[in-house]
Amino acid sequence: MQCDRIWTNARLVTMAGARDGLGIVDQGVLAATAGRIIYAGLAAEAPAFDAIETIDCAGRWITPGLIDCHTHLVHGGDRAHEFELRLNGASYEEIARAGGGIVSTMKATRGASEEQLVASALPRLDALIAEGVTTIEIKSGYGLALDAELRMLRAARALGTHRPVGVVTTFLGAHALPPEYAGDADGYIDSVCNEMIPAVADAGLADAVDAFCEGIGFSAAQTGRIFDAAAARGLPVKLHAEQLSNLHGAALAARHGALSADHLEYLDDDGIAAMAKAGTVATLLPGAFYFVRETKLPPIDALRAAGVSIAIATDCNPGTSPLTSLLLTMNMAATLFRLTVDECLAGVTRNAARALGLQDETGTLDAGKSCDLAIWDIERPAELVYRMGLNPLHARVWRGK
Amino acid sequence: MQCDRIWTNARLVTMAGARDGLGIVDQGVLAATAGRIIYAGLAAEAPAFDAIETIDCAGRWITPGLIDCHTHLVHGGDRAHEFELRLNGASYEEIARAGGGIVSTMKATRGASEEQLVASALPRLDALIAEGVTTIEIKSGYGLALDAELRMLRAARALGTHRPVGVVTTFLGAHALPPEYAGDADGYIDSVCNEMIPAVADAGLADAVDAFCEGIGFSAAQTGRIFDAAAARGLPVKLHAEQLSNLHGAALAARHGALSADHLEYLDDDGIAAMAKAGTVATLLPGAFYFVRETKLPPIDALRAAGVSIAIATDCNPGTSPLTSLLLTMNMAATLFRLTVDECLAGVTRNAARALGLQDETGTLDAGKSCDLAIWDIERPAELVYRMGLNPLHARVWRGK
Ligand SMILES: [Zn+2]
Ligand SMILES: [Zn+2]
Repeated sequence: MQCDRIWTNARLVTMAGARDGLGIVDQGVLAATAGRIIYAGLAAEAPAFDAIETIDCAGRWITPGLIDCHTHLVHGGDRAHEFELRLNGASYEEIARAGGGIVSTMKATRGASEEQLVASALPRLDALIAEGVTTIEIKSGYGLALDAELRMLRAARALGTHRPVGVVTTFLGAHALPPEYAGDADGYIDSVCNEMIPAVADAGLADAVDAFCEGIGFSAAQTGRIFDAAAARGLPVKLHAEQLSNLHGAALAARHGALSADHLEYLDDDGIAAMAKAGTVATLLPGAFYFVRETKLPPIDALRAAGVSIAIATDCNPGTSPLTSLLLTMNMAATLFRLTVDECLAGVTRNAARALGLQDETGTLDAGKSCDLAIWDIERPAELVYRMGLNPLHARVWRGK
Repeated sequence: MQCDRIWTNARLVTMAGARDGLGIVDQGVLAATAGRIIYAGLAAEAPAFDAIETIDCAGRWITPGLIDCHTHLVHGGDRAHEFELRLNGASYEEIARAGGGIVSTMKATRGASEEQLVASALPRLDALIAEGVTTIEIKSGYGLALDAELRMLRAARALGTHRPVGVVTTFLGAHALPPEYAGDADGYIDSVCNEMIPAVADAGLADAVDAFCEGIGFSAAQTGRIFDAAAARGLPVKLHAEQLSNLHGAALAARHGALSADHLEYLDDDGIAAMAKAGTVATLLPGAFYFVRETKLPPIDALRAAGVSIAIATDCNPGTSPLTSLLLTMNMAATLFRLTVDECLAGVTRNAARALGLQDETGTLDAGKSCDLAIWDIERPAELVYRMGLNPLHARVWRGK
């Protein structure tokens, strides 16, 4: 059988087949043509391939390319100074006076050109790519006004032309209340629903719509309006839910067929049942949990018992998770949340793809899917979760190359 | 004035001068000759240099090269499988039956040649070097028999010939009780004191002697005997102390003039007072704290109040801290221990040098010291502590090159 490339002498973590487990193939081979996997499985059972290029993996492990399914990678400025002030004991008011908080990121983002947003995001993207990331979700949400939100989304799309990586964009206009609408959250939601979502949809700049449903964010009622506006334009939804309190956002999201509900420290049983019923993925963000020193754990056992798919992601953002390592994210999910190695790996591959609606496109080593691979210098998959600060990536393949 | 190299247009974190603070010089220049700093300070006050090579830093920041002052970098095998079993809910007994624990590392280390120990340690060393580390301490302690301990120390010394990095070795024969001495800890301490320390000293393979003073390690009385044997051979001492309980090891170490006492979660006021009096450095190991999910914090405020110098280190080891990032170690020290940015940076430079007895040689940008530099693509030093997983190192200089 003809093919473009074949990887031989590989150990495969296919993530295919059964819901649980890594789907390991010890003496494996993987073949691709036109950027698609045409075979991934036992060498002994493979057809005879006539490949243009053969890559001998010398026993290395191949996993699906990693997927970071929740990031705020594009933003102006950073919050290192705010971090420093906090460690020095500064109060919330002192930090606000020093220009800290999300408003500082909004101002820096509004003040940045598309080119500047791309340039500042590239080192973060490169750090992720260096660890085998082949697909990344990037949210807007620091512009909080139409032009700046569009600029963020254009910058996110542009990143996918600067680097060989799949970029999925999410419109998060309802991330915070901009100062122009102080005291008028409903007015801002009007603008999000009636102006921003239509404009973003018309421009084809968003693959999904997200919101921050929280006491310090937007109410469930406001979130519901956003979901309706997204549905009216055919855009799938997801939600920042139950991070700091329980506003029953996850259940609301599930009722709207959300791809994922994210954070979820305060998720309750009703929310879990609704997510299970709807097939909404639980995206856990251990980097934010660690960085803000949260102590309330997401309800992992109940999610498992209900059969909810669990994804994990960096939540890369300047305020609560300045994290650009999906390997470290896995270690945090294991160490802090007690996810197993299999759950961690599923969380950055198969389930992360599902959280983006890309389960037919990437996230497992299955014939027909995009040939997105990470090839590792390791002796067992657990090493990818166990180590902190060591990057054993040998090679990365995106769409067959 | 003649010099070999000069770095211009630099912002310097000198760590020099006063006990606290970063010693920042905003418009700085640094000159070196024969591997030594001859000037580090304001460009406006610098003598006129006639340099063979001039490097324009374009406003980048220069810190002292980083120092990892507590590692077990050299060892056979890893414990990824044990980590996986634990996450799957295996009991302590099941892990022991599966060959886990320190004995598994001892076996893998004893079974490895010097060349194999060097080869397996190099990726870990390279990860540290990639983040600006110019000096590293490496302990023995997984051989637990004379020949294997000597082999570990030779491998550690050899790493310093394979890479441009300063290696400081520490003999840690009293790390754990080897199976050959089960039930006879005093007999093993006899061997450590009467055979191993003299042999290690004769071979010139150790720069210091360490022990693990703990309920699951060795008693204070046994530790005292090791310190006496080290003193008899003119070797300085340090101690793994008060990690899991309080055996008053830090005070014992201080009475023996120890360079450092390390871990210290259970350190009490008497220990702090003794350390302050002796000038013993408190080396904190947040990676181990994180990885074993310790909840008892070291007494940071009391250490500050007593004026004890605080160092931080990776504790890179396969069982409790498979960590090879000093940047991440700083983030953990800030996030988990609430060390300030200044304390984190002092902990991996000036105070780490002191913990190794190298305070006259490296750890600050002072004329006369080794020209060990880390040059960073950052806008402010706090970024080095704030980010997780991003390496902004622009260049590294060791002994002037
Ligand atoms: Zn988020
Ligand atoms: Zn140690």
